[in-house]
Amino acid sequence: MNYPKSLKDLIECYKKLPGVGEKSAERMALATLELDQDIVTLFSTTVGNIKNSIKRCKKCNNYCEDDYCDICKDESRNNNTICVVEEPKNVNLFERVGSYNGLYHVLGGLISPLDGISPNEIKIDLLLERLKNEDIKEIIFALKPSIEGETTILYITKLLEGKNITISKIAHGVPMGAEIDYLDSLTLEMALEDRKKINN
Amino acid sequence: MNYPKSLKDLIECYKKLPGVGEKSAERMALATLELDQDIVTLFSTTVGNIKNSIKRCKKCNNYCEDDYCDICKDESRNNNTICVVEEPKNVNLFERVGSYNGLYHVLGGLISPLDGISPNEIKIDLLLERLKNEDIKEIIFALKPSIEGETTILYITKLLEGKNITISKIAHGVPMGAEIDYLDSLTLEMALEDRKKINN
Repeated sequence: MNYPKSLKDLIECYKKLPGVGEKSAERMALATLELDQDIVTLFSTTVGNIKNSIKRCKKCNNYCEDDYCDICKDESRNNNTICVVEEPKNVNLFERVGSYNGLYHVLGGLISPLDGISPNEIKIDLLLERLKNEDIKEIIFALKPSIEGETTILYITKLLEGKNITISKIAHGVPMGAEIDYLDSLTLEMALEDRKKINN
Repeated sequence: MNYPKSLKDLIECYKKLPGVGEKSAERMALATLELDQDIVTLFSTTVGNIKNSIKRCKKCNNYCEDDYCDICKDESRNNNTICVVEEPKNVNLFERVGSYNGLYHVLGGLISPLDGISPNEIKIDLLLERLKNEDIKEIIFALKPSIEGETTILYITKLLEGKNITISKIAHGVPMGAEIDYLDSLTLEMALEDRKKINN
């Protein structure tokens, strides 16, 4: 590539992002040159600080900038229900649907013996901790419909045996193996509505 | 969107880039969180400085970081031939083809009365200046096959009347209106080979 070093560097950085190839990275780098200075400054500062400024909520493990995330801090929410999800982006997804008003718990992964992910490596202990300290009456699992998702649900359900908590999972409205974050809002809303009780 | 402010800011920045919508911007921002710290630091510094570090070559108007670009500084190149292009990215394109060893001249636009772009707004004067100072024997136009491209070629050809310079343009191997930067290398190479003399 015949560009000055800083442009080449920028192209290489863009290429690290998902879905960005050589051609798109080049287009993005050239477009960056044409952005307003204040956007470029904001861009640079945000990228530079993002890894430090984003922390995990001490309660639900969602992304936040303080100790607790905005959802856990929001007193208007129904704090008797926890929706258990895999990733922070799933929280955003359900918030976009808008029909759910409870709390969340971000596991940060799914149990997967094949990939060497044991129950200790995801935030199950933090969830159990919450059940001791908070008045939780219902847990809704909103995990990917896959072996790993089902294993995780089974494992946690077993741990909660004997506790007076209603456990459900969102309805399967989607084929096995589909990515949960490519669903449309309506399907997600229906799946939330049709959640299926697992215990008693 | 339910993300902390810095993540939202980053998503907004990514959305300013061409071809990046809401969903892709979100994916990119989340992926940025997972990049190594040294990549993030390089990314941040490069984005922040790009508008200051990239200048235009005083000779050919290509992107550069000093007074002159690498191609103009390269003494091994054939300095009797200038390939006239519209944008710096076109230089990169021809350099990727690899069969051209002459110099370039980046106009920075095409004459377009409809868009209010007059000959004074593109680097034609700089090209004429070069013809005085350098020993140029041939000029090859490699502009987009469009009304604006043809107008620009005609205008410059007229200015060069009487000068002992061979003027040509790359062969039309592509339909009118096509974007020059989406061509494959072979077509471009053939077009360069088949260039057509315009004057005598």
